[in-house]
Amino acid sequence: MNKFFSVDDIPNLSEAVKEALALKANPNANEDLGKHKTLGLVFLNPSLRTRLSTQKAAMNLGMNVMVMNMDKDGWALETQDGVVMNGTTVEHIREAAAVMGEYCDILGLRSFPKLKDRKEDYSEDLFSKFMKYCAVPVVSLESATRHPLQSLTDLITIVEHWNKPGKPKVVLTWAPHVKALPQAVPNSFAEWMCRAQEEGLLDFTVVQPEGYQLAKEFTEGATISTNLKESLQDADFVYVKNWSSYEDYGKVYPIEEDWMMDNKKLKLTNDAKVMHCLPVRRDLELSSEILDGPNSLVIKEASNRVWAAQVVIKRMLENLKK
Amino acid sequence: MNKFFSVDDIPNLSEAVKEALALKANPNANEDLGKHKTLGLVFLNPSLRTRLSTQKAAMNLGMNVMVMNMDKDGWALETQDGVVMNGTTVEHIREAAAVMGEYCDILGLRSFPKLKDRKEDYSEDLFSKFMKYCAVPVVSLESATRHPLQSLTDLITIVEHWNKPGKPKVVLTWAPHVKALPQAVPNSFAEWMCRAQEEGLLDFTVVQPEGYQLAKEFTEGATISTNLKESLQDADFVYVKNWSSYEDYGKVYPIEEDWMMDNKKLKLTNDAKVMHCLPVRRDLELSSEILDGPNSLVIKEASNRVWAAQVVIKRMLENLKK
Amino acid sequence: MNKFFSVDDIPNLSEAVKEALALKANPNANEDLGKHKTLGLVFLNPSLRTRLSTQKAAMNLGMNVMVMNMDKDGWALETQDGVVMNGTTVEHIREAAAVMGEYCDILGLRSFPKLKDRKEDYSEDLFSKFMKYCAVPVVSLESATRHPLQSLTDLITIVEHWNKPGKPKVVLTWAPHVKALPQAVPNSFAEWMCRAQEEGLLDFTVVQPEGYQLAKEFTEGATISTNLKESLQDADFVYVKNWSSYEDYGKVYPIEEDWMMDNKKLKLTNDAKVMHCLPVRRDLELSSEILDGPNSLVIKEASNRVWAAQVVIKRMLENLKK
Repeated sequence: MNKFFSVDDIPNLSEAVKEALALKANPNANEDLGKHKTLGLVFLNPSLRTRLSTQKAAMNLGMNVMVMNMDKDGWALETQDGVVMNGTTVEHIREAAAVMGEYCDILGLRSFPKLKDRKEDYSEDLFSKFMKYCAVPVVSLESATRHPLQSLTDLITIVEHWNKPGKPKVVLTWAPHVKALPQAVPNSFAEWMCRAQEEGLLDFTVVQPEGYQLAKEFTEGATISTNLKESLQDADFVYVKNWSSYEDYGKVYPIEEDWMMDNKKLKLTNDAKVMHCLPVRRDLELSSEILDGPNSLVIKEASNRVWAAQVVIKRMLENLKK
Repeated sequence: MNKFFSVDDIPNLSEAVKEALALKANPNANEDLGKHKTLGLVFLNPSLRTRLSTQKAAMNLGMNVMVMNMDKDGWALETQDGVVMNGTTVEHIREAAAVMGEYCDILGLRSFPKLKDRKEDYSEDLFSKFMKYCAVPVVSLESATRHPLQSLTDLITIVEHWNKPGKPKVVLTWAPHVKALPQAVPNSFAEWMCRAQEEGLLDFTVVQPEGYQLAKEFTEGATISTNLKESLQDADFVYVKNWSSYEDYGKVYPIEEDWMMDNKKLKLTNDAKVMHCLPVRRDLELSSEILDGPNSLVIKEASNRVWAAQVVIKRMLENLKK
Repeated sequence: MNKFFSVDDIPNLSEAVKEALALKANPNANEDLGKHKTLGLVFLNPSLRTRLSTQKAAMNLGMNVMVMNMDKDGWALETQDGVVMNGTTVEHIREAAAVMGEYCDILGLRSFPKLKDRKEDYSEDLFSKFMKYCAVPVVSLESATRHPLQSLTDLITIVEHWNKPGKPKVVLTWAPHVKALPQAVPNSFAEWMCRAQEEGLLDFTVVQPEGYQLAKEFTEGATISTNLKESLQDADFVYVKNWSSYEDYGKVYPIEEDWMMDNKKLKLTNDAKVMHCLPVRRDLELSSEILDGPNSLVIKEASNRVWAAQVVIKRMLENLKK
């Protein structure tokens, strides 16, 4: 594996999940694999879970880790070619990425969308250029349109907690927030769940208010609805997440209907497990009664971030050895 | 040991000091103890000595260390329950602490008081909740009311530098500053010295101007005075520190009397060794002549921070193995 | 080696380059040398290349690394003696340096000039005091007037890429920028090239517009010119860099002549290799056509930062063992 940017970088989801759960059972089994290898984690935006879990995964594999928080240094990168750099950008991504690639065997990059120009964000220009110019394998730590380490984690968590016959019904539901958030987490979750549905692992539904439909490229094959109550019927896993509008890009509409996930709505489900990528706004996106109750998987889900990162980095290390 | 928050977490001070000095003589003797274990250091406020010495101690024990500087990220934590999180706090301490506990075997937390509401600060609400929700052993890297790693260091330093018969007289003296500082260091120092006095290790006096008395819970058993000259008589160790008022909480009174520790006042003592937790404001709290002279222990004291941290983390690691 | 501050700390440049290239061929050969040793990297100013490459070098040598970004913490250091510290500086360099020296076996320090008072900057007061008070070997990560790790890197890169008979002609040329930059990189490069010229390794020329002459102490022995076209004749290596005026200290004059290095000017040379310490302002200092073409060494040069750092730290570690 030379990059981990979307679901397309994992040929078989069931196998990846199986491998992750084997690592969870035996975290240090591969600690010779990363010996003398360096992982560089580049954050253009803040991170808690991603930073710690990826660092932990790399250490489990015996790697050295170097973290660069470039968001705080005002190290503004130029991404456009043919520009005279006489403004505020201090370094071109061609040099910055290439240099980091010289010091690291594998790089991770986090880069949020600006939520102003949809075409620009969805082109994934910065991320693509970083991958191109750094010349080493790159792990997405969340890009403008996707958060694949989170989605692999989510799938691991679903498989781990499904012990009934048949396939679980997984529902992704929009929830309220006070800020305009990217679509990266729901896009990615949808992309991975659609693929998992193709592999016969589950059935997938997306439900959101009118105006909050995700881009079609991520939801192909999913049941899509604007009726929350109906969608929650028989759900086995409910994934709660806010996002801003894709259509009226980056905008937030006032929603009068009640979309916060709570115990009353939980009763409509098949005693569903409730998931969220965190951080969560309590009693705005998701009720405290659910978060503190037996149906919440959010902490176990966050814990699984380590194994998602570890399976990805392990595959990259194995590929380097070839 | 499952937590290190106050002197009550150390059953016998003499033994802890002895163990720390043994680690100082042989820093890497226990480097297998921390293998495959991770220490997470969470800073809600800045740190130099605490960060470096605790990191060093953990590396001496063979641990991996992950540092999170949350003060700079604007990662504002919600601590109140039952609040609709539609404001500026981005994550509840219930989730944040629990998640960090999933990635780390031991956590350290630094959290200063706000110095606005005494009841709130002295409830140690944030620290208690962090310990409760993270579900792993927690080391205080300074909380609202205590700085126990500093106090253990101070005791180690006193024992290490006392080579006369009988017990030393230890004096904690207030000193001037330009800012309103927390009471955590003097509270903690007093708490530890009172306990050391009970164990027969030393005699302890606190001296401060009128209006700067510490909370009684920390000074029980100490000789308390507002007469600096009298208190310095026969002192063997003088611990210099500024703090803001406990009574008129967080306030700073103009003090006309001269409370800066200098050579003239040192002459009143029994050629006392002078201590300070650092950073120190030269020629405001403590004179340069003392700091650069033979009576100052401040650098040796800072150096001992490593062994205080190491004995605490070592005991926690031993407890994990059980 | 007890310090690495200027070219004077390396007795024989050819031998140092040879040792660096041997480390490049075998990065982990000395990984027992740094076992149980700690490198502390103190940044009073931002850093990307220096931070990562020095960290990598130390890890190759088996050391632990602790990084302190003091620029962002508002940890303002007092450097003057005899000052009552009742202002904004929170700690004196005497204590700060001494304490860091207690926790680390080797320290690195980055400290930029303020570009306001030439006498103050060129006294290297802060750096000298840090070296004096920390009591352990110190590596300059760039000081007010020099950047010796960069210059050693540059020499390694020149030697590595010179495979013709005779000596190469190396030209340092001023280039435009939008900000007033320090003279540290060109000073240091000149100082190292003049010494390399003395050792018979190369011929060295400095060319800059009128008003931008470097301090004579750094350029003794070099050919100095204000005629760019003439200087580029027969050049084998062209080192491009902006700097502010030394004479009218820290000032930037408008320059009407074209000083940006581009393919047209490259044609005047002996098909020269083009170097820059990075970050580079594309199409302002140096044209994209050169940076993206076969004559650019900038990425290989940045890559060599690891081996420059590693040879310096290795020599310091060997000295510690004695």
